[in-house]
Amino acid sequence: MNPNPSASLVQALSNHQQKRPVSFHVPGHKSGKAYSRWAADPVIETFLTGGLEWDQTEIDGLDDLHAPEEAILEAQKRAAEAYGADSTYFLVNGSTVGNLAMIHTVCRQGDRVLVQRNSHKSIFHALALVGARPIFLNPRVESITGIPTGVTPEHVKGALEAYPDTRAVILTSPNYYGMAMDLAKIAEICHKHAIPLVVDEAHGAHCGFHADYPASALGQGADLVVQSTHKMGLAMTMGACLHTQGERFDKEKLHWYLSVFQSSSPSYPIMASIDLSTYFMTKYGKLWLTEAKQMVEAFYQQMKPYEDLFYIPKYMEKNSSYEAMDPLKLTIHFHYGQDGFSWRDRLQKEGIFLELAQERHTLAVLGPGTNQNDMDRFTDSLIRSVESMKPVIGQENLRGISNIVWNKEPWEAMEHPLTQVIPANMSAVPWRQAIGKISGEIIIPYPPGVPILHVGERWTLEKMQWIQIQKDKGLKFQGVSDSSLETVRVLPDA
Amino acid sequence: MNPNPSASLVQALSNHQQKRPVSFHVPGHKSGKAYSRWAADPVIETFLTGGLEWDQTEIDGLDDLHAPEEAILEAQKRAAEAYGADSTYFLVNGSTVGNLAMIHTVCRQGDRVLVQRNSHKSIFHALALVGARPIFLNPRVESITGIPTGVTPEHVKGALEAYPDTRAVILTSPNYYGMAMDLAKIAEICHKHAIPLVVDEAHGAHCGFHADYPASALGQGADLVVQSTHKMGLAMTMGACLHTQGERFDKEKLHWYLSVFQSSSPSYPIMASIDLSTYFMTKYGKLWLTEAKQMVEAFYQQMKPYEDLFYIPKYMEKNSSYEAMDPLKLTIHFHYGQDGFSWRDRLQKEGIFLELAQERHTLAVLGPGTNQNDMDRFTDSLIRSVESMKPVIGQENLRGISNIVWNKEPWEAMEHPLTQVIPANMSAVPWRQAIGKISGEIIIPYPPGVPILHVGERWTLEKMQWIQIQKDKGLKFQGVSDSSLETVRVLPDA
Repeated sequence: MNPNPSASLVQALSNHQQKRPVSFHVPGHKSGKAYSRWAADPVIETFLTGGLEWDQTEIDGLDDLHAPEEAILEAQKRAAEAYGADSTYFLVNGSTVGNLAMIHTVCRQGDRVLVQRNSHKSIFHALALVGARPIFLNPRVESITGIPTGVTPEHVKGALEAYPDTRAVILTSPNYYGMAMDLAKIAEICHKHAIPLVVDEAHGAHCGFHADYPASALGQGADLVVQSTHKMGLAMTMGACLHTQGERFDKEKLHWYLSVFQSSSPSYPIMASIDLSTYFMTKYGKLWLTEAKQMVEAFYQQMKPYEDLFYIPKYMEKNSSYEAMDPLKLTIHFHYGQDGFSWRDRLQKEGIFLELAQERHTLAVLGPGTNQNDMDRFTDSLIRSVESMKPVIGQENLRGISNIVWNKEPWEAMEHPLTQVIPANMSAVPWRQAIGKISGEIIIPYPPGVPILHVGERWTLEKMQWIQIQKDKGLKFQGVSDSSLETVRVLPDA
Repeated sequence: MNPNPSASLVQALSNHQQKRPVSFHVPGHKSGKAYSRWAADPVIETFLTGGLEWDQTEIDGLDDLHAPEEAILEAQKRAAEAYGADSTYFLVNGSTVGNLAMIHTVCRQGDRVLVQRNSHKSIFHALALVGARPIFLNPRVESITGIPTGVTPEHVKGALEAYPDTRAVILTSPNYYGMAMDLAKIAEICHKHAIPLVVDEAHGAHCGFHADYPASALGQGADLVVQSTHKMGLAMTMGACLHTQGERFDKEKLHWYLSVFQSSSPSYPIMASIDLSTYFMTKYGKLWLTEAKQMVEAFYQQMKPYEDLFYIPKYMEKNSSYEAMDPLKLTIHFHYGQDGFSWRDRLQKEGIFLELAQERHTLAVLGPGTNQNDMDRFTDSLIRSVESMKPVIGQENLRGISNIVWNKEPWEAMEHPLTQVIPANMSAVPWRQAIGKISGEIIIPYPPGVPILHVGERWTLEKMQWIQIQKDKGLKFQGVSDSSLETVRVLPDA
């Protein structure tokens, strides 16, 4: 026993709290500010009286998530009504568990599915567990930032004709940066082939509540949709929803997998916060989204003088790589002299925390907890920093380097199937010797958690270079056996 | 949109809170009382200042559960030290996710494993996902209550000799009722066969901290152990730990499955509460367990005059069906006239909520949040109720009826493999026509969540009768396609 016990994570959270941080990252409630702001509402006030006293279990009066009949069933029904679903299931283990359950429902071992290449790792994990044979749909790439976006209806149509035995199409929209694709046409194409459209809408719990925001996946005809209610709604972290529409899937299979992948002791505070989020979106959603849009438009105006220094994808602007843009995602792409990582560090010193930093850009995420004061601090800091910024002569403009990690073909079949676990016959080789070899591990830059190399894919020089640069800049990688990436695991050639 | 939105689950939790309920169910903190009680401690005080402000994400300073390097890594290391593990992993989706990850780590499709018949459903779910071929170890049965307990070293030894290709032994100890088995001898037997002993110790997060409580699974040599830190420790619901010891499993596989089954946005309040629980157990664990034991001993004394009315398994008493008994689990088995369900209802009217009611018994669970005042209310109510209780002449004594759901053989191989999903060729038949047919669904009385019929097992008259009685008494069933059990799904005969 430790004679002087401490509690490092309790301390870390307390330290963070003492910075009075401004949050431009998930969850959407932004350190509880959204709850405080609407605390005059009696339902939200009631939620705030809960705290640890609401951390209960399945006793009489509190229903049972895995066999709901009362309060949870009603709450799920209200969520379904608010989001336009036939059925809604509360998730307490994030969109991760929704993706696992959806994919296990729509395909089985050996089945072909179309899956967007820049999906969240949970999608690929699910496909590997199932043992499905994915055809990757390569996304379009935003030309200035190099950010992978969505796919086109034409590509989905072409791939479905090339692979008529496909059992489902699995897409992500909006992406991490709020860029959304034309799901309505894609849903129509899927349904012509009598297969379901499965959408990871983790970043779009607010979609469909306001005409100036991306339309919802359900509204566009998707069959199975997962939303992280904690990201853009009012739920606590891990609170999410799985929505269904129509009959193009086996409901019993879905129920079974949800009961398998979710805790048999689900968290009541998290479930209650999902319920609260439905209430909030129904009652205040449109008002909040109108205000937030105005805040963002004012930000665009303030940044107008600095357009030659950086680029900000804007929600009203047309773009060839996506069809709609979420106003609440502010991507700042630096043209010169300053990269995303150092800009993130500078902001953090002022107590402002971003969602993501990459080499050339940062991402700030607004939510119901974002207020004008926080927005002003963010904007002021950006302008002050920008004014001290000078173009650096001779520095290579690295924009668009991310392009190289995305194949130029609209789709590609995998050489090897996605596999569930690291096989026994794999070997660790020094990083530089991996070129041309087949990866035995998944390489996931985090955030955003989109794998750039899968088990079964070949290492290319381009991917290695990209990873090397990100690594040097301090980006973290998940899924790897050696976090320093000194060695990587490879499979023997077939 | 609903013009008059409400929030049924928020309301249900608020209604429950207003009853000022006394909790004899999980979580262990008992509606936050444990935190209040030790709030003078600066670390616990700090935790209480957190609330929704601590619902954060993987920003600088807060580490990353899926690639821990700082505060979370340190917290996990301290937990490993406190619990005697080589490594400890924090779980945010309950013991459920730990069971999924452990079982995927120790076996693969087609592998034989020995598994205790009265395991939690998450164990069977995991085996079905993997596609393993389980050999069921039938538990001993406590003779008075009919409660299934643990298995004996002799049975494990015999089954391993009968099935030498077994890859792992998967047991549960203590069981839901606090009854623990001799894991030390079983671990020795497993290790002689060079296979890991995997233990679901969900109900034993406090084991090993006091000599009068069951020894911990790790202390007895288990290789992989899951504990629900929320059940008997101080964590919030869904907070759990996976402990490992030795090298009889593939660490990389375990890491991979944990990253697959847990949310990529794990809850910080829950993770911090696991850290807090380690701190609490290290600093106050022994003191708390000593006090709690005294409280329980006083309860036994008070109940002594009523021994002819009911039976309470006591932690110091020898029993032929288990080797140790957790003092914090109070099973009240009624001999006469009053069943578990109506006794539960009576207590609830007085604001006292139990963990479980079954036909002939109830289960009260104590934890760090249980205080003497709550214990007095529980005891007074029980005595008052008992004093009005009279033996009912002629009423059949139903004790031990649960025996019939457990096979009398020490082990049994399944006729069909556990299957992952309900097959397409199954059919729904009226309940009474299912006798003799092979079940197409799993039947899980909840609580405690231990399946009594698996997919692939035959319906017997005895099991049907048992289920009918429980159903009539109001027990809920999970896993079933028709919650009224009017119809059940069966498979065609092979």
